[in-house]
Amino acid sequence: MGGQIEMLGQTSRETLDGAPEQRGSDSPSSQLDRWMAERLLTVLGRPAVALRLWDGRRISIGQQHGAVEVTFCLHDRGALYRLLNKPTFTFGELYTTGRLTVEGDLVRGLEIVYREILRLDRHAGPVKRFVKRLVAKRPNPNTLSQSRENIHTHYDLGNDFYKLWLDEDYTQYTCAYYPAVEATLEQAQAAKLEHVCRKLALKPGDSVAEAGGGWGGLARYMVRHYGVTVRSYNISKEQVAYARARAEREGLGEAVEYIEDDYRNMRGDYDVFVSVGMLEHVGPDNYRTLGATIDRVLKGDGRGLIHSIGRNFPGRMNEWIESYIFPGAYPPTLREMMEIFEPPGFSIVDIENLRSHYARTLTHWRARYEANLPQVREMFDEDFVRAWYLYLSGSISAFTKGQLQLFQVLFQRPACAALPPTRDHLYREQD
Amino acid sequence: MGGQIEMLGQTSRETLDGAPEQRGSDSPSSQLDRWMAERLLTVLGRPAVALRLWDGRRISIGQQHGAVEVTFCLHDRGALYRLLNKPTFTFGELYTTGRLTVEGDLVRGLEIVYREILRLDRHAGPVKRFVKRLVAKRPNPNTLSQSRENIHTHYDLGNDFYKLWLDEDYTQYTCAYYPAVEATLEQAQAAKLEHVCRKLALKPGDSVAEAGGGWGGLARYMVRHYGVTVRSYNISKEQVAYARARAEREGLGEAVEYIEDDYRNMRGDYDVFVSVGMLEHVGPDNYRTLGATIDRVLKGDGRGLIHSIGRNFPGRMNEWIESYIFPGAYPPTLREMMEIFEPPGFSIVDIENLRSHYARTLTHWRARYEANLPQVREMFDEDFVRAWYLYLSGSISAFTKGQLQLFQVLFQRPACAALPPTRDHLYREQD
Repeated sequence: MGGQIEMLGQTSRETLDGAPEQRGSDSPSSQLDRWMAERLLTVLGRPAVALRLWDGRRISIGQQHGAVEVTFCLHDRGALYRLLNKPTFTFGELYTTGRLTVEGDLVRGLEIVYREILRLDRHAGPVKRFVKRLVAKRPNPNTLSQSRENIHTHYDLGNDFYKLWLDEDYTQYTCAYYPAVEATLEQAQAAKLEHVCRKLALKPGDSVAEAGGGWGGLARYMVRHYGVTVRSYNISKEQVAYARARAEREGLGEAVEYIEDDYRNMRGDYDVFVSVGMLEHVGPDNYRTLGATIDRVLKGDGRGLIHSIGRNFPGRMNEWIESYIFPGAYPPTLREMMEIFEPPGFSIVDIENLRSHYARTLTHWRARYEANLPQVREMFDEDFVRAWYLYLSGSISAFTKGQLQLFQVLFQRPACAALPPTRDHLYREQD
Repeated sequence: MGGQIEMLGQTSRETLDGAPEQRGSDSPSSQLDRWMAERLLTVLGRPAVALRLWDGRRISIGQQHGAVEVTFCLHDRGALYRLLNKPTFTFGELYTTGRLTVEGDLVRGLEIVYREILRLDRHAGPVKRFVKRLVAKRPNPNTLSQSRENIHTHYDLGNDFYKLWLDEDYTQYTCAYYPAVEATLEQAQAAKLEHVCRKLALKPGDSVAEAGGGWGGLARYMVRHYGVTVRSYNISKEQVAYARARAEREGLGEAVEYIEDDYRNMRGDYDVFVSVGMLEHVGPDNYRTLGATIDRVLKGDGRGLIHSIGRNFPGRMNEWIESYIFPGAYPPTLREMMEIFEPPGFSIVDIENLRSHYARTLTHWRARYEANLPQVREMFDEDFVRAWYLYLSGSISAFTKGQLQLFQVLFQRPACAALPPTRDHLYREQD
């Protein structure tokens, strides 16, 4: 259809270049269809977006907030009716299969829509909140075997895929830290690792237990820059294989050990516990177990840090992301996170919210992903390509608008004397 | 008794100079008395302390941790038996009335004993914890009228009394911030005020609502150094009168307004909410009300900071302190504090634990208190003098050993854009 192609031409920077497949030639929209489309915009809180139907008809209603900036194009009648039923979930499915495309900035469109959804969520009554809370606690259960399955789905997509758009030096698939807005992704990921090490006040000879070590970048950084020993646990087979090979290649010897096992099976006695980007996959039912695990392996004067996506109030990850991208993932509130720290009597020393840094990190990732689309298309089909693009775009919007947070939580045993009384050492120029 | 006088002579720096009154001349200790004294030490977990009985007999048992450093002297039989019944509560009463005195360092003695109590607490089973939690939630109810009564008891002791041992410039009766260990109390209190203002990223013209403004020091600092306007609420009559007079004397004009009223009655529309050292008096049952109050008075893009004593896991303030020093006070865990922030959907930006700074602040306060004992004695009777000394000493011990924490919690509305993405502005040299 002419309008559609024109649309993609206008916005090739914002959606994906190349037209989505043409869907079945539905009959022109009826009055009922158009009424339903208006209804959808009303339910969503009259956001400043428009809908374009499969026959080119454009629907916009008196917007509550500002002029229309973004148009969502629905390419068949079924897309409209599925969206009416369960908008937040179906959006992802429709976008992925190209039955829904976007005219204008995708991130901006998601921000506008999610601002309204967030507002509706916030003003839900106590009963609705209670039910949401109950429901929210039950994502994919993270038993030992299910955890392995969930993690496999996401992290074993192939190291080559992640290499295309993550930073080159440390392959960090977690929020970076931008000391200055103009930092590159490589600089910001190295700065994140440095920030974590400084918070933990690492010193030569410290023993570190890492839970969820990714491709091994943090462990390598710690060993090389702080002279510590690290034992790093991870249940992603591909990541562990990569991390081991790389550490060997770099001659790190026995200072770092990558173990393919669950955090619950950690053994040993360490000065420091660290976990960057694993908690999202742990699930609130297991927070006490995680706390007990840390309690078991941390020395009587130890300290630790957990870095995780979080939320301001309880709720599940977007259902579509949970189903298609991150099975079993759950971003906790700080209140929920305290289930980890309170029972063992850990003392919270410092919590920093790096939300805006994650929006910037994701913007860098998405730009590289776009730049590498030809290679991604050689690896995966178009549905995957679009799904991943939506996931990155939606995450930018969620961190920009505050639907998601990023918490770094530094904690210690009450008897720990390793951490300095102020935080100014975090902000000194590096030697 | 000779031993007792000798004891006081040895430790005049650590307890109070001047001997406590001689109590009734009880008959010498029996075998039962001595068995009971041993029992007491056993119940307390065999800490490295000894007891000296009223007839001079010294009781110490095989200590679990280190050699005896401190001796607690019990000056009559009744003191022993009261202590056996309810040690944490009775200790304060007996010390206050001089029926219990200390040979050696009082703070050290309290640290040793509390370390054991803390350990016992930590290892309480789930049922005991649950009961403790229930009980812990019911201190003096902080209704509007009861709050006024509770606050009157503590803060209206007379401004002259507090002037004797708080800092001269801002009369801060809250934890200071020591950028360097050698800072004076005056420097550290000014640095605390600066730290709070920087965290809030105040800019000229901002409107600030303060809850629990003490003697008005923070409001004065904000107005003078940051060009903001402050409306400060406080239910302590004496403090408000002092704050008003001082602001007038310093010519701060209409930029600051001190209001004698409860935080629940706050009105207006502000860029910033701040509360330093009030939450301890709010009580967990009122956290939602406090959150709703902040939600009501804070602009849609506002931010705020709450500074409060806290704990690692739920529990009441020491019962003696709660009864005699701070009626209605309750130090929350971070989990409990989230009751304030989560329902209105505030985003936590930064939490800093300044526990060690409070130990240092209290050490400065206690030294000044001791140096000004003659003036304190002109104002109050000896029981008060000793009670206050114990309260300051016990607090040093609690913050040193981690029984108490000090949390500064910076939060914002998700739409707030005032706070910078990193915290390095907190640590720049002042112009």
